[in-house]
Amino acid sequence: MTRPELIRIGVIGCGYWGPKHVRVFSEIANSSVTMVSDLREERLDHVRERYPGTRTTKDYRDLWNPDVEAVVIATPVSTHYTLAKEALLAGKHVLIEKPISFTSAEGEELVELADRYNRTLMVGHTFEYNPAVEYLRDYLASGKLGKLYYISGTRVNLGIFQKDINVMWDLAPHDLSILLFVLGMSPISVSASGQAYVQENIHDVAYLTLHFPGKVLAHIRVSWLDPCKIRRLTVVGSKKMIVYDDVEPTEKIKIYDKGVDVPPYSDTLEEFHLSYRYGDITTPHISLAEPLKLECEHFLHCIATGETPRSDGHSGVEVVRILEVAQRSLSNGSMQEPVR
Amino acid sequence: MTRPELIRIGVIGCGYWGPKHVRVFSEIANSSVTMVSDLREERLDHVRERYPGTRTTKDYRDLWNPDVEAVVIATPVSTHYTLAKEALLAGKHVLIEKPISFTSAEGEELVELADRYNRTLMVGHTFEYNPAVEYLRDYLASGKLGKLYYISGTRVNLGIFQKDINVMWDLAPHDLSILLFVLGMSPISVSASGQAYVQENIHDVAYLTLHFPGKVLAHIRVSWLDPCKIRRLTVVGSKKMIVYDDVEPTEKIKIYDKGVDVPPYSDTLEEFHLSYRYGDITTPHISLAEPLKLECEHFLHCIATGETPRSDGHSGVEVVRILEVAQRSLSNGSMQEPVR
Amino acid sequence: MTRPELIRIGVIGCGYWGPKHVRVFSEIANSSVTMVSDLREERLDHVRERYPGTRTTKDYRDLWNPDVEAVVIATPVSTHYTLAKEALLAGKHVLIEKPISFTSAEGEELVELADRYNRTLMVGHTFEYNPAVEYLRDYLASGKLGKLYYISGTRVNLGIFQKDINVMWDLAPHDLSILLFVLGMSPISVSASGQAYVQENIHDVAYLTLHFPGKVLAHIRVSWLDPCKIRRLTVVGSKKMIVYDDVEPTEKIKIYDKGVDVPPYSDTLEEFHLSYRYGDITTPHISLAEPLKLECEHFLHCIATGETPRSDGHSGVEVVRILEVAQRSLSNGSMQEPVR
Amino acid sequence: MTRPELIRIGVIGCGYWGPKHVRVFSEIANSSVTMVSDLREERLDHVRERYPGTRTTKDYRDLWNPDVEAVVIATPVSTHYTLAKEALLAGKHVLIEKPISFTSAEGEELVELADRYNRTLMVGHTFEYNPAVEYLRDYLASGKLGKLYYISGTRVNLGIFQKDINVMWDLAPHDLSILLFVLGMSPISVSASGQAYVQENIHDVAYLTLHFPGKVLAHIRVSWLDPCKIRRLTVVGSKKMIVYDDVEPTEKIKIYDKGVDVPPYSDTLEEFHLSYRYGDITTPHISLAEPLKLECEHFLHCIATGETPRSDGHSGVEVVRILEVAQRSLSNGSMQEPVR
Repeated sequence: MTRPELIRIGVIGCGYWGPKHVRVFSEIANSSVTMVSDLREERLDHVRERYPGTRTTKDYRDLWNPDVEAVVIATPVSTHYTLAKEALLAGKHVLIEKPISFTSAEGEELVELADRYNRTLMVGHTFEYNPAVEYLRDYLASGKLGKLYYISGTRVNLGIFQKDINVMWDLAPHDLSILLFVLGMSPISVSASGQAYVQENIHDVAYLTLHFPGKVLAHIRVSWLDPCKIRRLTVVGSKKMIVYDDVEPTEKIKIYDKGVDVPPYSDTLEEFHLSYRYGDITTPHISLAEPLKLECEHFLHCIATGETPRSDGHSGVEVVRILEVAQRSLSNGSMQEPVR
Repeated sequence: MTRPELIRIGVIGCGYWGPKHVRVFSEIANSSVTMVSDLREERLDHVRERYPGTRTTKDYRDLWNPDVEAVVIATPVSTHYTLAKEALLAGKHVLIEKPISFTSAEGEELVELADRYNRTLMVGHTFEYNPAVEYLRDYLASGKLGKLYYISGTRVNLGIFQKDINVMWDLAPHDLSILLFVLGMSPISVSASGQAYVQENIHDVAYLTLHFPGKVLAHIRVSWLDPCKIRRLTVVGSKKMIVYDDVEPTEKIKIYDKGVDVPPYSDTLEEFHLSYRYGDITTPHISLAEPLKLECEHFLHCIATGETPRSDGHSGVEVVRILEVAQRSLSNGSMQEPVR
Repeated sequence: MTRPELIRIGVIGCGYWGPKHVRVFSEIANSSVTMVSDLREERLDHVRERYPGTRTTKDYRDLWNPDVEAVVIATPVSTHYTLAKEALLAGKHVLIEKPISFTSAEGEELVELADRYNRTLMVGHTFEYNPAVEYLRDYLASGKLGKLYYISGTRVNLGIFQKDINVMWDLAPHDLSILLFVLGMSPISVSASGQAYVQENIHDVAYLTLHFPGKVLAHIRVSWLDPCKIRRLTVVGSKKMIVYDDVEPTEKIKIYDKGVDVPPYSDTLEEFHLSYRYGDITTPHISLAEPLKLECEHFLHCIATGETPRSDGHSGVEVVRILEVAQRSLSNGSMQEPVR
Repeated sequence: MTRPELIRIGVIGCGYWGPKHVRVFSEIANSSVTMVSDLREERLDHVRERYPGTRTTKDYRDLWNPDVEAVVIATPVSTHYTLAKEALLAGKHVLIEKPISFTSAEGEELVELADRYNRTLMVGHTFEYNPAVEYLRDYLASGKLGKLYYISGTRVNLGIFQKDINVMWDLAPHDLSILLFVLGMSPISVSASGQAYVQENIHDVAYLTLHFPGKVLAHIRVSWLDPCKIRRLTVVGSKKMIVYDDVEPTEKIKIYDKGVDVPPYSDTLEEFHLSYRYGDITTPHISLAEPLKLECEHFLHCIATGETPRSDGHSGVEVVRILEVAQRSLSNGSMQEPVR
């Protein structure tokens, strides 16, 4: 029995993310994974064993055939541009792991190509599909937080060390895509500091400071060299404060009804008193749906309808542009650099 | 019955720290608190009620009499220099709350005065007397941590807002004194970023990055605007990693037997593999003795023996020197500034 | 300057609780601690050093003089009855540590004496004055919890071992007084099991099961032999569930908007489905006021007004009555025993 | 390509546990899942979609053919006996979910059948294959814990309500199998109390007390009606104490170097002092291997070698025997009942 409405997916790269995409697109009712490619034979053996219906190949060009409508690119970053370009030229829709490319120029070229050929180009900013992040965005948009002051994030663990990118290019795209998505604006300037310990010239520890319009500050700490896995974002506003802890199994978001009101006016310093408010904490119920599954479903939806994906090529390029500037600061004594 | 060996203490300032000093010096067997001064009558009433044997005054100069041998200065920072100078000129030993002064020049003058008059001058870097911090220092000195890579600290809460100093001058002295004490060296350069939200021009959020010799990096986050009280220091070395969490009631230090060994050599990138070690966690028993009490006992011991205090004037000045440089960076687009 | 309105307190016993009472009654504006008695000279030395205005004695009978209007009895349980009786006969108001007495008969005699001489008799059920426990009671009374199902409590730590009472008599009075206060009813039957390990015949581990009217079940675990300090009560109702964790510094109460609705009717077992609700969690702001201080203020208030204390002699006797029955079960193969 | 050495598995029941077995036996290299049966068509559809190579049937008797060598029985408890008996008579090896049967008599009959036909009969006591539980057993056996005093366990959550068994039969088999495995002995007597709230006559809350030889006490709390998922076992010995928290992602076992030494002799009660020891905490590295996978591999190993499984039929019957006695106590006013 053929199901013509099934969207046929090919996956390039079977390292960390590839197998997850194979699993998820296999589970989703209206897609099937028809082909998988990787350079390593044992990875392909593994795929065939678990997914007998999926064909495998060491040559990714085999995916440019009609049995594949859309490809997932889950290879090292240095190959993203070339693979995505070929895929688009072959008429495929493309879901590409973050960061979209090594340079913003390459990313922009991919965006143009997708436009020209009318293909869906989406970046794997998984967190934009995370129900907790959606909650954050809605909460800020609602005004309940008051005026947004600052966001402080930590994304550290004893890591999977990358060889072609440093920790900032590896982990910070998550936080940057969250910031762009939640704030709906781009930073004015960025500075970065860090150090390379385990591998020469590849930073395994980095700190980013981002200045946004309206005095909004964001700070991100990323590290592959930390004993604890921490995935935590603190969002501070004039009325409420939120902690989003992605490591918590169920209580991911906590809203603190605390804040500090400054009296608008005081005659003398002695009269000056800060009034404190300290109140309830609320842990809203957040859907436990798997973000990667929501992301993949969104990709299929955009292919079917022609809609622009939430994490489209433009947002992928914007993340790379910020990383480029941050990289310049990192190599430049932590100078604060304008983003544009 | 007179006890001639009792050291007679005077305390100037009854805000946050003063009453703690009154309590602790009252509890210690070989000291007594003979006088307390504050500008606010109701604070003095309060002291008299709890300590009927202690005299009070609104004029701190009343403490320059023979009934007081040593003074604790626990007033706003802007008054430290003047009060400490007068006290030393009046022949008193001085324990001064951190930071020692507003400028390093003032601090140096106090150090010289104390030298000239042969008085004990000590700064209230409480954490240097904290058993957990002593454990950290001994652990690093023992070589068990391997080569020290970096230290990341967080000291945040919904704060007591200061009016004459920003959050960096208020909270970072704790971390800086810990770093100087544990590392036994000074930073080469510092950069700082942050923002002022609640009070104009008084930063309530700040991030410091310090570069030490030997590629050692330290990063400190301080904030008066955070929903959670966090007091956490992560120390990462080539062999072990330590988390020091001062908010934990008993399990303050955790030692992680994790680390990453890089193979010294590999022919090709493909061969390149990082070997992971992941092992036991140890939570050593740390004495629960009150750090402030240990600090005050050390002060009395130094007075009695003429020994130089652990947290002497020099270390107080060093902390201020770093803060001065960090302040320059904060006002200067986060430029990395040399410390000397 | 005499302050005639000050209520003059005497404290008998300077072990664990006595010094806390001395401190609190000294801090409260309308009371003063005039006398303290203990059999150990060094404990009295200690009191005199910290409270120069307080007289001390090794003979508790010295407190039966007009300088003492009310006494706190904080001695081993075996002495409670004798001391309280003498105090009431001497015309003193009495605040007695829990449990009120070794037998309910003795406790009842104290209640009668207090009635006859028109004195305030109060038991130190501190938790009845704990804002978190008051919150629990109000929440249940409001009906928001739905029908109350059951309460499960844990009160364990590596303990201060008592010599004249077992762990059940030492720790369970807290939970029993909470249950009586929050539920407003007494149990129908009790069973208890446990074991004595460290000291012969003195149980250091015990489990109590209490059956209340309306199918309400309560279960309490107490132990002096546990590596962790746990003070936790789970209250489960048909609409909400509450966890009260007294070890948490600020987030003591968490209300879970979870529950299980059973469909009223289902044709076949296959149709049978339980519907789950899973929702928000709320952590209400609870006052951090010290329960012992609230308790002592309530004692002074009752003395001044003649009001009956919340934790009066009757509730003290009720707790002892339950302990007597539980002790019978403990010695009797955990038989379920009727409380009355 | 046929692989003759593959052991061909059939799975009966696709509710909670069945699909897990299908997944795990599919992943293990030397087994394949050839058939799956369930009464619900949609469950079978689901299996076929994910495992195209697996045949499905609504009639479990279809599994008594040569394509199936061993069956997993993951159906409601009431059907265990009948299904297992038929399977053994058909010459299949049997892995049966816990509890093995509704009555110990039925369980014993299955043991005899397996013996007579020389088939492997194993019960799904997963926790016996959990590396943390193995660590516990080895630690106790090593003598490092000192004399074992008592074990206290909690296994609660907002549950999946069963319809044919109560919470004790559903959850306590885990704890009972852990106790039998770790202690290597059976209890002398058992008592149980509890209550049925959501479904009539089906207890959703229960407490078990077990007395073992040598004054060893065990207590287990199980509930389907608790807001938090707790999986915690505290093991207290004369030298060390261990907490095993299965909800912790990595720090599952904590060993507390605390203990209480009683002085062997003291003249008077006044002289009596308990000496406390309080020391380090160790969190040993525990393998994160999936217990169900280890269990299934053990099953395959026993089939191949003829070895007796760790969790063999006898241990399955022993768990049921204890549950039967506990059930009697539950219906009998919590009477303490002898196990044999």
